[in-house]
Amino acid sequence: MKIIEAKAAPNPRRVRIFLAEKGIAVSFEEFELTMENIRSAEFAGRNPMRQVPILVLDDGQCIAESIAICRYFEALFPDPALFGATPLEKAQIEMWNRRVEHGLFHAVAQAFRHLHPRMSEREVPQVREWGVANKDKALRQLALIDERLTASRFVAGEAFTVADITALVAVDFMVAARIERPDSFEGLARWYADVAARPSASA
Amino acid sequence: MKIIEAKAAPNPRRVRIFLAEKGIAVSFEEFELTMENIRSAEFAGRNPMRQVPILVLDDGQCIAESIAICRYFEALFPDPALFGATPLEKAQIEMWNRRVEHGLFHAVAQAFRHLHPRMSEREVPQVREWGVANKDKALRQLALIDERLTASRFVAGEAFTVADITALVAVDFMVAARIERPDSFEGLARWYADVAARPSASA
Repeated sequence: MKIIEAKAAPNPRRVRIFLAEKGIAVSFEEFELTMENIRSAEFAGRNPMRQVPILVLDDGQCIAESIAICRYFEALFPDPALFGATPLEKAQIEMWNRRVEHGLFHAVAQAFRHLHPRMSEREVPQVREWGVANKDKALRQLALIDERLTASRFVAGEAFTVADITALVAVDFMVAARIERPDSFEGLARWYADVAARPSASA
Repeated sequence: MKIIEAKAAPNPRRVRIFLAEKGIAVSFEEFELTMENIRSAEFAGRNPMRQVPILVLDDGQCIAESIAICRYFEALFPDPALFGATPLEKAQIEMWNRRVEHGLFHAVAQAFRHLHPRMSEREVPQVREWGVANKDKALRQLALIDERLTASRFVAGEAFTVADITALVAVDFMVAARIERPDSFEGLARWYADVAARPSASA
């Protein structure tokens, strides 16, 4: 079993943090995201969406999508439960993970993909106006998360979950997308200091 | 318990089909998506993302995000397992549901939101170039799904799952987004005839 990833990309980091929180060791293989590699038939065969990370099982089967990889390990090793244990926890954690993913994470990624010169070959067409709009969207989403973290210790409630992993990676990804984090977000700052200090954050 | 929804919107339909497949009866309450209603404090209190559907539990707690609502019912009533039973099935179904959601469903939704005059107040700014780019993205994603459905009975494998629900709703949503489905997609057409004929499709 191995995970094909790109160390600098945000989605593979979600899986690395998840596995570190679970205490699961898996070998990683770096995939260089050059256009030649991305366009290769071998890569498309492993994931038609042409994205990393990809979990390659011992029989050669491939599981793509960060959260699908995380769910595979959650099902195999339920403790600690990073997707929740009861039906209500499972629903709440899925809700918050999706809010962060479709809100902040997506907006930051769109700003990065549509404004960063490095993405000009991978995001075609780059739509500048859409990139700029997403910088604003990211800040509005960050305000919602700050509001939540003023009332709640972690994103989905009183326990650290996969929703915190998604939020941490999204907040750190703001640097690459050149979106400044406002100092006024105190709930967010308190939470960030907490989760960024966990050993998993540097996985 | 009740579900607040908007009958004509695609995401509430995912939940209705899911519940119909499970044979679960829940009462629905129609929420009119006027700007006044969307901007109301009551709506934000139920879901800060200001989206439907929202599952309101008997104690007043709200679960938003279609897939989070579906997971709540999957955990309470595991049969039939629409998110999979084994770790590998769970991972594969999550992977395919996400591929369809982040690929086709998202592209169709972006084309609709950025090009349809009815969305001009809700999607600010509407970026025409981004809407047009997403019509192309939607067709490329449809080609990937067609390729999959040429080799596989259902989207995630040999069983009907939540990934088929997401795909069916996305394909039907193409009509509102004014994206024509090419006749050449035979795998897709075979699958579509199959899933659209299920009683749940008209839920």
